[in-house]
Amino acid sequence: MFHHVKELQFNARVSKPDVRFAKLLLEQFGGPNGELKAAMQYFVQAFGCRKPHPDKYDMLMDIATEEFSHLEIVGATIQMLLTGVNGELKNAADESDLTKMLDGKAAKENYIHDAMINPHFFVVSGGTPTLTDSVGNPWSATYIMGMGDLTADLRLNIGAETSAKMVYENLMKFTDDVLVKESLRYLMTREVAHFQMFQAALESIQPNFPPGILQSDPKYSNKYFNMSKGEDFEGPWNKGKSLELSEEWQVIEEPLQHVIETNGLLNEVSKGTDRTEDSVKAANKKLSTKRKTEVDQTNITSNGLMSWSIYEEQMESEHHGN
Amino acid sequence: MFHHVKELQFNARVSKPDVRFAKLLLEQFGGPNGELKAAMQYFVQAFGCRKPHPDKYDMLMDIATEEFSHLEIVGATIQMLLTGVNGELKNAADESDLTKMLDGKAAKENYIHDAMINPHFFVVSGGTPTLTDSVGNPWSATYIMGMGDLTADLRLNIGAETSAKMVYENLMKFTDDVLVKESLRYLMTREVAHFQMFQAALESIQPNFPPGILQSDPKYSNKYFNMSKGEDFEGPWNKGKSLELSEEWQVIEEPLQHVIETNGLLNEVSKGTDRTEDSVKAANKKLSTKRKTEVDQTNITSNGLMSWSIYEEQMESEHHGN
Amino acid sequence: MFHHVKELQFNARVSKPDVRFAKLLLEQFGGPNGELKAAMQYFVQAFGCRKPHPDKYDMLMDIATEEFSHLEIVGATIQMLLTGVNGELKNAADESDLTKMLDGKAAKENYIHDAMINPHFFVVSGGTPTLTDSVGNPWSATYIMGMGDLTADLRLNIGAETSAKMVYENLMKFTDDVLVKESLRYLMTREVAHFQMFQAALESIQPNFPPGILQSDPKYSNKYFNMSKGEDFEGPWNKGKSLELSEEWQVIEEPLQHVIETNGLLNEVSKGTDRTEDSVKAANKKLSTKRKTEVDQTNITSNGLMSWSIYEEQMESEHHGN
Amino acid sequence: MFHHVKELQFNARVSKPDVRFAKLLLEQFGGPNGELKAAMQYFVQAFGCRKPHPDKYDMLMDIATEEFSHLEIVGATIQMLLTGVNGELKNAADESDLTKMLDGKAAKENYIHDAMINPHFFVVSGGTPTLTDSVGNPWSATYIMGMGDLTADLRLNIGAETSAKMVYENLMKFTDDVLVKESLRYLMTREVAHFQMFQAALESIQPNFPPGILQSDPKYSNKYFNMSKGEDFEGPWNKGKSLELSEEWQVIEEPLQHVIETNGLLNEVSKGTDRTEDSVKAANKKLSTKRKTEVDQTNITSNGLMSWSIYEEQMESEHHGN
Amino acid sequence: MFHHVKELQFNARVSKPDVRFAKLLLEQFGGPNGELKAAMQYFVQAFGCRKPHPDKYDMLMDIATEEFSHLEIVGATIQMLLTGVNGELKNAADESDLTKMLDGKAAKENYIHDAMINPHFFVVSGGTPTLTDSVGNPWSATYIMGMGDLTADLRLNIGAETSAKMVYENLMKFTDDVLVKESLRYLMTREVAHFQMFQAALESIQPNFPPGILQSDPKYSNKYFNMSKGEDFEGPWNKGKSLELSEEWQVIEEPLQHVIETNGLLNEVSKGTDRTEDSVKAANKKLSTKRKTEVDQTNITSNGLMSWSIYEEQMESEHHGN
Amino acid sequence: MFHHVKELQFNARVSKPDVRFAKLLLEQFGGPNGELKAAMQYFVQAFGCRKPHPDKYDMLMDIATEEFSHLEIVGATIQMLLTGVNGELKNAADESDLTKMLDGKAAKENYIHDAMINPHFFVVSGGTPTLTDSVGNPWSATYIMGMGDLTADLRLNIGAETSAKMVYENLMKFTDDVLVKESLRYLMTREVAHFQMFQAALESIQPNFPPGILQSDPKYSNKYFNMSKGEDFEGPWNKGKSLELSEEWQVIEEPLQHVIETNGLLNEVSKGTDRTEDSVKAANKKLSTKRKTEVDQTNITSNGLMSWSIYEEQMESEHHGN
Repeated sequence: MFHHVKELQFNARVSKPDVRFAKLLLEQFGGPNGELKAAMQYFVQAFGCRKPHPDKYDMLMDIATEEFSHLEIVGATIQMLLTGVNGELKNAADESDLTKMLDGKAAKENYIHDAMINPHFFVVSGGTPTLTDSVGNPWSATYIMGMGDLTADLRLNIGAETSAKMVYENLMKFTDDVLVKESLRYLMTREVAHFQMFQAALESIQPNFPPGILQSDPKYSNKYFNMSKGEDFEGPWNKGKSLELSEEWQVIEEPLQHVIETNGLLNEVSKGTDRTEDSVKAANKKLSTKRKTEVDQTNITSNGLMSWSIYEEQMESEHHGN
Repeated sequence: MFHHVKELQFNARVSKPDVRFAKLLLEQFGGPNGELKAAMQYFVQAFGCRKPHPDKYDMLMDIATEEFSHLEIVGATIQMLLTGVNGELKNAADESDLTKMLDGKAAKENYIHDAMINPHFFVVSGGTPTLTDSVGNPWSATYIMGMGDLTADLRLNIGAETSAKMVYENLMKFTDDVLVKESLRYLMTREVAHFQMFQAALESIQPNFPPGILQSDPKYSNKYFNMSKGEDFEGPWNKGKSLELSEEWQVIEEPLQHVIETNGLLNEVSKGTDRTEDSVKAANKKLSTKRKTEVDQTNITSNGLMSWSIYEEQMESEHHGN
Repeated sequence: MFHHVKELQFNARVSKPDVRFAKLLLEQFGGPNGELKAAMQYFVQAFGCRKPHPDKYDMLMDIATEEFSHLEIVGATIQMLLTGVNGELKNAADESDLTKMLDGKAAKENYIHDAMINPHFFVVSGGTPTLTDSVGNPWSATYIMGMGDLTADLRLNIGAETSAKMVYENLMKFTDDVLVKESLRYLMTREVAHFQMFQAALESIQPNFPPGILQSDPKYSNKYFNMSKGEDFEGPWNKGKSLELSEEWQVIEEPLQHVIETNGLLNEVSKGTDRTEDSVKAANKKLSTKRKTEVDQTNITSNGLMSWSIYEEQMESEHHGN
Repeated sequence: MFHHVKELQFNARVSKPDVRFAKLLLEQFGGPNGELKAAMQYFVQAFGCRKPHPDKYDMLMDIATEEFSHLEIVGATIQMLLTGVNGELKNAADESDLTKMLDGKAAKENYIHDAMINPHFFVVSGGTPTLTDSVGNPWSATYIMGMGDLTADLRLNIGAETSAKMVYENLMKFTDDVLVKESLRYLMTREVAHFQMFQAALESIQPNFPPGILQSDPKYSNKYFNMSKGEDFEGPWNKGKSLELSEEWQVIEEPLQHVIETNGLLNEVSKGTDRTEDSVKAANKKLSTKRKTEVDQTNITSNGLMSWSIYEEQMESEHHGN
Repeated sequence: MFHHVKELQFNARVSKPDVRFAKLLLEQFGGPNGELKAAMQYFVQAFGCRKPHPDKYDMLMDIATEEFSHLEIVGATIQMLLTGVNGELKNAADESDLTKMLDGKAAKENYIHDAMINPHFFVVSGGTPTLTDSVGNPWSATYIMGMGDLTADLRLNIGAETSAKMVYENLMKFTDDVLVKESLRYLMTREVAHFQMFQAALESIQPNFPPGILQSDPKYSNKYFNMSKGEDFEGPWNKGKSLELSEEWQVIEEPLQHVIETNGLLNEVSKGTDRTEDSVKAANKKLSTKRKTEVDQTNITSNGLMSWSIYEEQMESEHHGN
Repeated sequence: MFHHVKELQFNARVSKPDVRFAKLLLEQFGGPNGELKAAMQYFVQAFGCRKPHPDKYDMLMDIATEEFSHLEIVGATIQMLLTGVNGELKNAADESDLTKMLDGKAAKENYIHDAMINPHFFVVSGGTPTLTDSVGNPWSATYIMGMGDLTADLRLNIGAETSAKMVYENLMKFTDDVLVKESLRYLMTREVAHFQMFQAALESIQPNFPPGILQSDPKYSNKYFNMSKGEDFEGPWNKGKSLELSEEWQVIEEPLQHVIETNGLLNEVSKGTDRTEDSVKAANKKLSTKRKTEVDQTNITSNGLMSWSIYEEQMESEHHGN
């Protein structure tokens, strides 16, 4: 269950209205790297952890709830930046004689120009935030990801924090308002904090590579295909050993010839690795048993029905701490 | 700021897994009439009310927060209905010999058939809810509406509660699980409760018709154009007086002829109404002054900057009640 | 069957081209609150009424057809506002020497600046309307709603007319062209007229609350959860009696504590209402019988097949009036 | 202005309900190749033709209006195929005892299975058509195209009729209902008729190649780059003369080598064509003058304002024919 | 398999950065008529041709691969037009003192104004192309079409080349950079070349009308319904013979009356055509046999399994030519 | 420039048609975690690296091109799984007598049932792949991400490989075809290989934390807000030191009280960290100078114009290796 208190998590303030920056800031309200995306991604992922991984569930819900609180900070800032728009729209004088009231044609020109910056603020939402990015694309659940596997989801979350941090960094270039910058800097910093929380959680799960259960095929896991010819380079991504599996990279310089010679890679052989078909099978079996057990044993119910919360137990833990 | 507690607002329970009903129930998790739509619609609308209409802000945030809590109930129910899917996906034996483990071909057939019901549960989300409707359309912010005007927004919210109620009513036909039905009935009932809250709030604003500020043109406000010929009917929508403006309906039986005769309605005249161009202007001016003042006076700041929350005052109110 | 005549329903006129206002006006051509949304919403809802509710079918098709005619008015106005764009795009001189023809660099700058206002007009649609909103989002059927239940659909339609009215009201602030304002005012007024038609139709159906068939659960229908703490308010939405069911609002000041004490509301009891589990069942049964019968009896066919129109009967009614 | 009559353009009939085929048929109601796409594409294109090309405007509006009438036929057929769904949803008995009413568990199973075919029919639209394709994607204006140029638009319309014809052809495989097939065959045939109307209109414009104004560059217009190596073929698309420009195809067998040798094609030379830079310029100038004049001269107004319809003239033409 | 070389197919160059034109050019990078649309449409269509129509497969893959190479040219041009944006975003001085570094407030104003042109370049993509159209709509697979039938697909491809040509023609009006125009002209010309390739391929298939297999119904194939009344016109689309079927157009001047008289067209009769129900059946059977055989015979496998490529054979053809 | 050869990179084979698995496999053809997403994400990111980071450009284009080649493998597999569908759709006999040809009603039932699995295959694409996910959502560019910053983009790419790996792992559960599994295993393994390439590239950039330029604020970077109350847990994400910044986690057990006491965190102080406001400024300045220089110096041109490729130099490198 959620609760709301009317205090913001951060004391968001604004020096003066700024329709233009309000438009840019929408990127973190309803954009693909913004606060709603983060909040919903962690919230939705959390359902699968509730039973088998209550500690990760706790962390995901702590962060998801903070992201909802950040969404509120961003929305509040946009609302303050739009101060005046709503009042002007309720100015019925416009029907007959706006020009006069706004001190001449130039004033009206400015007003219309502002509307062109983001028409939605003026003709649709009436001077309030819209759940879109900075050019007006409506927020979409295609932004959120979750695979039902913690080592996968935590990596996706690190990506989410990464891109959110970048957008806040970029946004700071487009306002001179020190109060707004103060809020942006706080929000940017929290993405860095969450990044490290997800990273720590990922490290706490072993093994965590590859994501999921199944091992990779040693015949193909360390091949590097030189598919883009011309100015070619060497780097740790095609020379030396891979970081996770410690296999020696094998560069295929002429992919077409190689593919034909190996009958479409069917006759490919392992090189530069100690892993074998047998070691892969053993690893698959071992990890599968472990992970499947973790999940399945939490699904056993004593009374033949499933419930999400046990209200009496929770009462206890509330009173005695944990 | 939001808070979360691990108890659900309602004790959602499930008797046994049911992938099919989990799919249908997605409609209220990530569908256009579902809980997220409601929660986000009221949450986004609330920003514009924070200053000028703190009482409506309080109500919108009370209901928005409850809808987030309902979203959690729906997600928890889907997760329980999907029990077993995640564990099975972690079953590495599948690579070599699923048929045997699942007691023969029939079992595998059932498993594949279940996957066809909603492939996302099986190949993407790993047995957890997805933020889509029942056929897989990702949730979209096109579902939410707000016009920056309370008499408009409250009507849109009545519409939102209406459609949400209908979907719960329909869903009840597709499960026999009495525990699930119990939750559905609770959720359906809350839509009815919210409907009446928004209705009461709308009545508390006067005048509340038409939405917005500007009055309608009496030349056109009570004309009924018979645009669909054939089996024609009379009803209170084209005979008698209109409910809000008490104008006598005027039916235009032959729209084309009428349009030509009035030079494209430019020469239309008022009939069946007491309203005049002058009364419209006066009403526009009066309402505009009132509503603009309400909004503008809340934007005045003493110290030249804008803030959303006053932390000390809130502390007071927390301690002394209100 | 539809017919078209080349006269517009309203004599839409324009004083001079205005690319900027053309962009804003797109909101009512291809936007979520615009004419196509209204037209398609009523048109699609009408199919379900054809047999069981021929009077409502007649009304829905009268209004849907008028909305299509309004869509044409909006499109025609945009086209006139874009006068000159298409011709200039066919100016091949641009390839070699536009600067000269446009009287210097300043002219070209203006032309490019206009293109930035809405690139689609210049590089895609060639100076004709596009089926998008004012920022370029393509029209989407997610905008239209219908639940197969008249008391629900009519409420959704009241919402549609509400938001359409607001957009026209807002648009009037952004043009000085008195001819364009004339059309906007006509279109805005018709939304007010349709609002009242749907309202009258809704009142003509009894009972019309709640939407659908099933009654709400009296244990939960009048509870108000105080989910947003801080500055709390009382109003008719949480104090006194609800407007439809006349139940006394019951405020839950501490939702978490209440939920725990009632075992997740399972042990909740009714208060402030006369409705009982039995009265709910009786009401459900009575209304269900009535509504199901209305629908089912119109599906009975004499000759074992279904047809939409009976051409001979219609011929009669054409010739003898109705 | 549109009008509606309650007779369908075609006597659509159905032998018995069929939820499955109703789902498939949605493809032509709200799908990318369906009736709404065609109707809206021609309707939107028509605005740009109103003044400069009144004959093509007439044709586009004739066909657009017919497509709206076909949309109605498709919707009516879906509605008839869904007969019974709406009534069953109003069956309140379901709450307590559907199993009994439906003659046992098997009946309920069938009902649930039907809901899985297309959940939207059962839990959202209440047994009425939805404006989606057969898998539930909402109709989108990305489906419609128009470039503000008749030789382009007519070719796009030929494409639209082509794909619509294919879908009807495919649909016929999935129903045994001879009455439904009768309607499908009629609708399929009309796509073939419209195809030829657009083709005739395109031929009536000369020159009509290339679409638009600007001629192609003779250095690049007849080169064929062999970008996909392996099993290579010759055909009239890379051997002989091109159909419109009668230029001899020039195959570039080794694109990379050729690009390097010509400094990225900057040093490319014309071959196999009589067209020159001068002939291109002359053709551009001639066609530009012609087309620009056609458009511009229709924009001249005598009284300094623009209107879409002249009501008096139309009255005349109504009375005296044309 | 694809390969990449770092040389562009055309030597794309830019004289100076231009954020505004970069925005417009996005239309051909990620827009509905752009290079990715073309590339993906032909690439996806090609799968169905691989076995039954290897010559058309070769052509589709030649052109698809060229379109991918054009996508690269467009992206490279946008990247060069955005030169400087990325560097400025990495300018940390902005946090404390951008105003000073940018030589005063005017410079910052210009920078912010540029960001308003396309916020995505500045706050999201960091000065690199985005896969959107010019107003920011993300590229969508709704843009691509393919019906699994060559006479249909080739016509759709002619449409795709038509609209792409138009956009390049329009774009040339909005830049003075002769180097950029050089690239645009090359790209525009290639659309004209591809148009003629698809046209030639379509002509090489006989019969190619109508698309697909099934013939149209002679009762309805040459009727022209006058659905839009007022200023009516005659043209080759409603007078004389249709171009493909050589049937005499039959105008229905009064559709409503005609529909009623023919019992909803069920009693319609053929006129102005030699085709009969029997000739239609014969044509259907003949063409069906031919086309079905073409497809089916390529699906026969000798060893009971299906493979896409035969590597040894390809090696042969590589070495000995074809 | 891209090239194509008709050999697949992997010898994809199929034992027998399987419409159901073809549907599931669409997830990796046109789904959000599939091959097109990966290919386009790396391809689009590469533009920004071309000049400043040619080694990373080489790697991104190598992998992007391989992903396009994998897209082809997936599409080819789907096409083979759909063998027979296209031929059957060309079977005109269906119009009159499919029942007979298909050996009775049961056969037709199966055919219709198959169509319900994925209607697009049968009524739209004619038995060829569609660019959608497994439930029919069209591919959308919202799936791809890039921030114009390598340390951000490489982390996003690690996320992309993670989710793609998971989908292949899940897909293997739904087919018994050992040939198809062989291809899936190859494709899954390549995601693991690419994961490690991006990881190695990320490690080769120092410092690589946080992504972008700006350091986090030490007042907020190590706070952990306990926003979800109830069953609380400790882990390395809220206890001990953070992995990147080595700051001691500080748990805020009562967020509301803390926020009020710190005046909305404005009075927050640093704890558990050595970083200071000064060290942050110094780090920002140092990194900014380095990264800005890297980007800017590659933008300097000798001749005053920008080009993407230098054809002569490339020729050299082709001939002499690199």
